[in-house]
Amino acid sequence: ATCHQKREPAGQRGSIFADLTADEMHAVRDFLMSKPQLRLSSSHKETLKKNSIFLMELHVPKKGDALKTLDKGRAKPKREARVVVTFGDQLRPNITEYIVGPLPKPTYYKRRTFKGKPPKFESRPISQMEYRHVTNKLQEITKKVYRILVDTTGFSFHNCTDRCLTFSDIAPRGLESGERRTWIMLQKFVEGYFIHPIGFEFLLNHKSLDPAEWEVEKVWYNDQYFDSVEELVEKYEKGEVTKIKLPDHDDDDLYSTYIPRGESSTRANVQGPKLVQPQGPRYRVEKNFVEYAGWSFAFRVRSSAGLQLFDLRFNGERVAYEISLQEAAAFYSGSTPAAMQTKYIDAGWGMGTEDFELASGIDCPEIATFLDLYHYYDTDRPVLYKNALCIFEMTTGVPLRRHFNSNFKGGYNFYGGLENNVLVIRTTSTVYNYDYIWDFLFYQNGVMEAKVSATGYIHATFFTPEGLNHGARVYSYVLGNLHTHLVNYKVDLDIAGRDNSFETIELKYENFTNPWSPRHSIVQSRLHRTQRTTEREAAFPFGKHLPRYLHFYNPTKKNRWGHHKGYRIQFNSHAYSVLPQGWKEEVGITWSRYPLAVTRQKDSEMTSSTIYTQNDPWEPVVSFEDYIRDNENIDKTDLVAWVTVGFLHIPHSEDIPNTSTPGNSVGFFLRPFNFFDEDPSVASRDTVIVRPHKNSFSKVDTDRWTPELAGYCMSNKPFHYNGTYREV
Amino acid sequence: ATCHQKREPAGQRGSIFADLTADEMHAVRDFLMSKPQLRLSSSHKETLKKNSIFLMELHVPKKGDALKTLDKGRAKPKREARVVVTFGDQLRPNITEYIVGPLPKPTYYKRRTFKGKPPKFESRPISQMEYRHVTNKLQEITKKVYRILVDTTGFSFHNCTDRCLTFSDIAPRGLESGERRTWIMLQKFVEGYFIHPIGFEFLLNHKSLDPAEWEVEKVWYNDQYFDSVEELVEKYEKGEVTKIKLPDHDDDDLYSTYIPRGESSTRANVQGPKLVQPQGPRYRVEKNFVEYAGWSFAFRVRSSAGLQLFDLRFNGERVAYEISLQEAAAFYSGSTPAAMQTKYIDAGWGMGTEDFELASGIDCPEIATFLDLYHYYDTDRPVLYKNALCIFEMTTGVPLRRHFNSNFKGGYNFYGGLENNVLVIRTTSTVYNYDYIWDFLFYQNGVMEAKVSATGYIHATFFTPEGLNHGARVYSYVLGNLHTHLVNYKVDLDIAGRDNSFETIELKYENFTNPWSPRHSIVQSRLHRTQRTTEREAAFPFGKHLPRYLHFYNPTKKNRWGHHKGYRIQFNSHAYSVLPQGWKEEVGITWSRYPLAVTRQKDSEMTSSTIYTQNDPWEPVVSFEDYIRDNENIDKTDLVAWVTVGFLHIPHSEDIPNTSTPGNSVGFFLRPFNFFDEDPSVASRDTVIVRPHKNSFSKVDTDRWTPELAGYCMSNKPFHYNGTYREV
Ligand SMILES: [Ca+2]
Ligand SMILES: [Ca+2]
Ligand SMILES: [Ca+2]
Ligand SMILES: [Ca+2]
Ligand SMILES: [Cu+2]
Ligand SMILES: [Cu+2]
Repeated sequence: ATCHQKREPAGQRGSIFADLTADEMHAVRDFLMSKPQLRLSSSHKETLKKNSIFLMELHVPKKGDALKTLDKGRAKPKREARVVVTFGDQLRPNITEYIVGPLPKPTYYKRRTFKGKPPKFESRPISQMEYRHVTNKLQEITKKVYRILVDTTGFSFHNCTDRCLTFSDIAPRGLESGERRTWIMLQKFVEGYFIHPIGFEFLLNHKSLDPAEWEVEKVWYNDQYFDSVEELVEKYEKGEVTKIKLPDHDDDDLYSTYIPRGESSTRANVQGPKLVQPQGPRYRVEKNFVEYAGWSFAFRVRSSAGLQLFDLRFNGERVAYEISLQEAAAFYSGSTPAAMQTKYIDAGWGMGTEDFELASGIDCPEIATFLDLYHYYDTDRPVLYKNALCIFEMTTGVPLRRHFNSNFKGGYNFYGGLENNVLVIRTTSTVYNYDYIWDFLFYQNGVMEAKVSATGYIHATFFTPEGLNHGARVYSYVLGNLHTHLVNYKVDLDIAGRDNSFETIELKYENFTNPWSPRHSIVQSRLHRTQRTTEREAAFPFGKHLPRYLHFYNPTKKNRWGHHKGYRIQFNSHAYSVLPQGWKEEVGITWSRYPLAVTRQKDSEMTSSTIYTQNDPWEPVVSFEDYIRDNENIDKTDLVAWVTVGFLHIPHSEDIPNTSTPGNSVGFFLRPFNFFDEDPSVASRDTVIVRPHKNSFSKVDTDRWTPELAGYCMSNKPFHYNGTYREV
Repeated sequence: ATCHQKREPAGQRGSIFADLTADEMHAVRDFLMSKPQLRLSSSHKETLKKNSIFLMELHVPKKGDALKTLDKGRAKPKREARVVVTFGDQLRPNITEYIVGPLPKPTYYKRRTFKGKPPKFESRPISQMEYRHVTNKLQEITKKVYRILVDTTGFSFHNCTDRCLTFSDIAPRGLESGERRTWIMLQKFVEGYFIHPIGFEFLLNHKSLDPAEWEVEKVWYNDQYFDSVEELVEKYEKGEVTKIKLPDHDDDDLYSTYIPRGESSTRANVQGPKLVQPQGPRYRVEKNFVEYAGWSFAFRVRSSAGLQLFDLRFNGERVAYEISLQEAAAFYSGSTPAAMQTKYIDAGWGMGTEDFELASGIDCPEIATFLDLYHYYDTDRPVLYKNALCIFEMTTGVPLRRHFNSNFKGGYNFYGGLENNVLVIRTTSTVYNYDYIWDFLFYQNGVMEAKVSATGYIHATFFTPEGLNHGARVYSYVLGNLHTHLVNYKVDLDIAGRDNSFETIELKYENFTNPWSPRHSIVQSRLHRTQRTTEREAAFPFGKHLPRYLHFYNPTKKNRWGHHKGYRIQFNSHAYSVLPQGWKEEVGITWSRYPLAVTRQKDSEMTSSTIYTQNDPWEPVVSFEDYIRDNENIDKTDLVAWVTVGFLHIPHSEDIPNTSTPGNSVGFFLRPFNFFDEDPSVASRDTVIVRPHKNSFSKVDTDRWTPELAGYCMSNKPFHYNGTYREV
C-alpha cells in the first residue's frame, strides 16, 4: 500500500552525493595547478607564504537540481568540487573557496562566497607545515628552559631519548578576531600523553607568515605567569620562582595506557560473545548507496564535519533529504591558561578527515562491511583512509515487538515476537585526544537514530588546588577539566515531499463533570497542539522547556486513518548552553543555543558551521543565528531542523585511561508518527508466532517465515517455545 | 588495589535473598492450612466468601540482619515467607498479611501491619474466581443486548462460535475508597483483541461477595449513556438510540496480528545476525547469584513488582544493597468512560507474576541462560514459569573505549580498543495488553543500567471524533488513547558502606579578569555543589529543574586521588507527572511526583507501592509521600534513592499491531564517580593494542590477552589492523 517512487538504475543511486574519487581529486588538483594566475604550489613547501590547495571535496548540487534528478528522472546536475585555497603568497593573504567543474574533466573554477564575507586569513586551520614551524619554535624555546623542564619532570623537549616531551595546542588562538596566538602545553611523550601535562604552558603568537617573527607572549609555570621565557629563566635562577618537582616518572605505572591490569572473578582470558551472520548479510551496499529492510539512503563523508546522509526513504517514500553532522564543540573550564582558553570547535580541526581505520571486532563487529574513504586535506594528493567507515546489521538483544497473549489459565491464545535488528553506519573522528563515534541506526520499524559516543583521552591540565572548582584530580599531578560536549546535526526532513509543517504537542489538563457520576469531576490530559509558523516560534533555547512532541508533518498527505503523515524528533541528550548568549566565543556556536531550531530550507544555508569557526569564533563567516534572524514563515514549506545534543562531562577517576562510552552517548530518534498506516516492521519475515495446537499445549504450532535453523555455527536445535505456566 | 570483602562460601552467596522454593511454598501452605483458626480453603472454591491464601513469597530479612550475615559472617537470619490471606468468610472481610517461619519447616505465623492500617478489603486484586463470576455476569447481561451486539458488530458474547466477544476490565474500580465497581469494555475475541473495542462499555458494581447482588450501574453505547441494560434495550427498540454498525469483520485483515505483510527490497527470507559464544560463557550463575567481570549480585522476582537485585558489588566492594522495580503506572485520557477511568497501577495486577516464558532468539539471544521461576499467587500450589528470566552477555557493537593516537604523518603511536560487552538480566511483565521488558545491564566499567522497554498492545478504546483530543485513530473504529508510562525503582545505594551522603552538582558562571590579558575578562563555568541534608531538599518534583549531576558518595572513604568514593544517577527518561498533586488517584502514586527522591533507609519503608494501590489509590496503605513527610536528615546515613522514569505515549498508526521498543525504552544509569581509582574495565583481557613495529608500519605489533582466533564458527583470519592512511 506504500508508494514506490521511480528509482534511478542500480549502481547509479546515490551517485550525485558520492564523494570525489581519487581520480577526480587528481584531476581537480591538476586543473587548478595548471592555472598560472593562481600561482599554486605544493602544500609541502616549507614557507607559509605560499598559495596552496588546502581542502577539496564534493560540492553537493543544489537541492532543487538534485530532486529533479531523483524524482523527475532529469539528467544529473554537473559534478563539481569545492576547493579551499589558502593564498599566503600575496600582499593581503586570504582564503578563497572555489567551485570547480565539471568533473571528471574540469574546465572552470569560480569563486564561492559566504554571503559576501570572505573568511579572515587568521581563521584558517593550522596546516602540518605550520605545525612543523611551531615545533621548531618549541625547540628554540625549550632549549632556554631545559634545566627547568628537567628539574621539574626529568623530561625535556629537545635532546631527549626516552624522556621526551610533546605538546598540545589550544584553540581558539587568541581573544579577538584576527589574532593567531596559541596556548601550548607540554606533556610527557608517553603512551597516552594527553593526560600527562607537566604544568608548563606558554602563549605563542604565530600570526606572521614569517616564523622568525613569532614570539612567546606569556609563560605559565607552576601557577605563576611570566611575560617571557627569559623572565622565567632569570627569576628561576634567582630563586624567585616557586618550583615544583613531579614525582619520578614510573615506567611501570600503567595509568595512561590500555595495558590490562587487575583481576576478574570470572573467566577473562577468552573472547566474549560475537555477532555472526550464518545466512549472510541482509543489507545491500552499492558504492555509497545503502538498502536495508524498507530503508534506502546515500552517504558521504565531508572533510570538515564528517558523515552526511542523503535521500533517506522508507519503502521508496522520502523521509529526509539530508541528515548530517555539522559540528562538535567542547568548551572547558579550568585554572591554567590553557584550560581557561580551551573551546574546541572540531570542524576546524578537520574532524571529518580524522576517520582513521576501524578495528574489526572492536570498533565494528567482525561481520561489518568496511569501506575506504579519500580525503584531500592539507595535502598534495588524495589520502586513502582504509576501513574508515563500516556498515553492519546487528541484533540489539531485545525484541522489537513481542506479546504473550495469556489465557489466564496457564496457557495463551498466541505468543508473537520479532527480534530487534538494526543497520548501523559508523565513522569515527579522533580529534586529537577525543574519539567520537558517529552512528546512524536504521530500525526495521521506520525509526532512525543518530548517536554520538565519546571516548578517547580527556583533555587534562596540570593539577592545582584551585582546579578542583573545575574538575577532579585523576592522577597525582593531573586535573580532568569540566567541559560540555555539544554536537549539531542538520536534519532536513522531507516528510513524503518537500512542503512540510511543524507543530509541537503538549498536554493540558482538562477538568469537567464526570458524565456518568455528576457529583464527581474528572481531570485528565488533553492534546494541546501549537502550530509553529515562524522560525522564531520554532527555535527553542536551552533553559526553556522543550515541548514533549516535536512533530514534522506533511500538511497535504494523510495516512489511511486521516492523520497527516509525520515524523517526530525525540531527544536523548543532556545538553545545556556553555556560555551566556553573545559572550565572545559563543557567537561562533550560535547553533548551540537551541536543542532544536527549525528553518526554511535555503541552498545558501548549507551548514551551521565552517572550518573557519575554530580560529575565529568571534566573527564567524557562518553564524547559525542569521538563519533564523529573518524569522521566515515555516508553514507548508521546505523545513530544516537543526538539532543540538550533548552532555556535561565532569571528569572523574573512571575517565582514566579513557572516557568510556556507556552513559556517554547522546543523540536523537526520528520516529514515524502516522507516517505509515501501521508499523512497517510487519514486513519483516523474522516474526515468529506460536499458538496452541487444537486448543492444547501438549503440542504447539509455530509459524515462522525464515529457515527454522540458522545454520552454520548456530545451534542445530530448532526454535522451541511452549509458554505454558503450571501448578507444581 | 581494591578491597575484597569476605565472601560466603560458593553456592550460598545470595541465598538469603533467594525466592521460595516450590517445597517451601508447599510447606507454608500446609502449615497455614493446618491452622483451624484461619479456616483456610482452596482458592479454587467457587464462593467469594472464603478465606484463602492469595499470595506467598519470600519475606526478605531486615537489612541489618542481612548485612550481619553478608559482612560479618554471622549466621543467616531465619528464612521466612510473606503470605497474603483474604478473609472473605467473616462478618467484616479483611486482608491480612502474615510472616511465616522458619522455613523450611514453619512453626509460627505473625501478623504484618502497614503502620497499623490494614488494607481495605475492596482494595484486593481481583482473583480468577472473581473473574469467573464477572464472566458469568457478562453472559447474563449480554444476553439482554444480544441483538444490539450482533447488529453493531456481527459478534456476540454468548452463543458465538467464530464471532465471539471478550472483555477488558478497567481500573481503578470506582471513584472513591471502598468502592469496587468496574468499567468493562467488550472487544472482538480475535488475535489481538485489545485493539478491537466495539464501543460497548458498562459499569459493573461487584463489591458484594454475593455475585447475585452485582449490578450494572451504567452502560455506554455509541457515545450515549444509559442507567441500565434495560434502558438501553428499551430505547434501542423504540429507535431512541443512535445506532452504529461497524464495518463487516474481515478475517483477512491482518491489522491486529503479527502475521507478516508487505515487501522488503533486501533479503528478508533469511535469519539475521546472531550472537554466539565461541569460547563459552564468561559469567557465572549459581542459583540466584551472578558474577560477571568485577560485578556480583543476587536476584529474586517478587510476585508483586518483579525483579529485585541485592548486594551489588564490584570487586567485592558494595555499590548497592538493593535495586528493584517498585511499580509501573499508565494513566490514560479519552472520551469513553473506560478510557477516562483507566489509571493502571500494575503491581495490583500481579505484574511480578506475569513473567511468562521468554522465547530464545526473540526475547533473549539464543546464547542466554534461561531460568525458571515459581510464583504463588491466586493459586493452591506453586506455579512454575519456565524460562521466565534470562541472563546473557552480549556485545553492544560499539567499543567501550578506543583511541587512535595519530602521529599526524599517516601513522600512529598506538591504537587501543576494547569492545563493549555487557551482562543483561531480564524478565518481562505482560500486564494484559502491554509487555514490559525489564533489564538490568552490567558494564565492565562499573556502570549499571536499569531499562524498561514497552511493547505489546496499546490500550485502545472505541473511536469517537471527540477522541482525537486524546489520541489518534489507528483503525476504522479504534482510538489509541494518550497515556503516560511511569515506572518507579528503589535504588538503595550503599556506596562502599552504609553511611552515604548526597549532593547535587550544577555549573555556575564565574566572571573574572583574564590573568594573562587584564583588559579582557573570562567567563567560564565552575562546579557548584549543593549538599542535600534533608529528605525535602532531596526530593525533586517534576516540572522543576533536576540538577545535572546527582551524586551519592561515601563521606568517609576516598579514592586514591582524594575524592569521595561515589556513584551518580543519570536519567534516560521523558517522564512527567500525570495528575495535579493530590488529585484523587494521584494520591496512590505519590512516588510519581519525583524523578528522584532520597530517603533515609527504613525497614518499614520497603516498597513505594503495594498490590492494593490499584483498587484503592484514593487511600493507599503505602504512600511514598509519607516517607519524606518527616523530612529526616539524610547526611552520612543509609540512603535510598527512589527513581521514577517514563514517557508520554501518544499512540500513532505505527503502534499497530504493537508498540515497538525502539525509542520506547527509558531508565537510568548508575555511574561510578571517583568510586574507583581508574576505570575498572582495565581488568578486561579483551583489550587490543596495536603499535608500529620498530617505528615502521610495514609490520605492526598487536598485543592481545585473549586467543587470537575466537574459534568455532568465527573467521579463521586473525585480527588484522594496519591503521595507516596514505597519499595515493
Ligand atoms: Ca531564515
Ligand atoms: Ca525539508
Ligand atoms: Ca523519612
Ligand atoms: Ca543505602
Ligand atoms: Cu568529555
Ligand atoms: Cu504506551
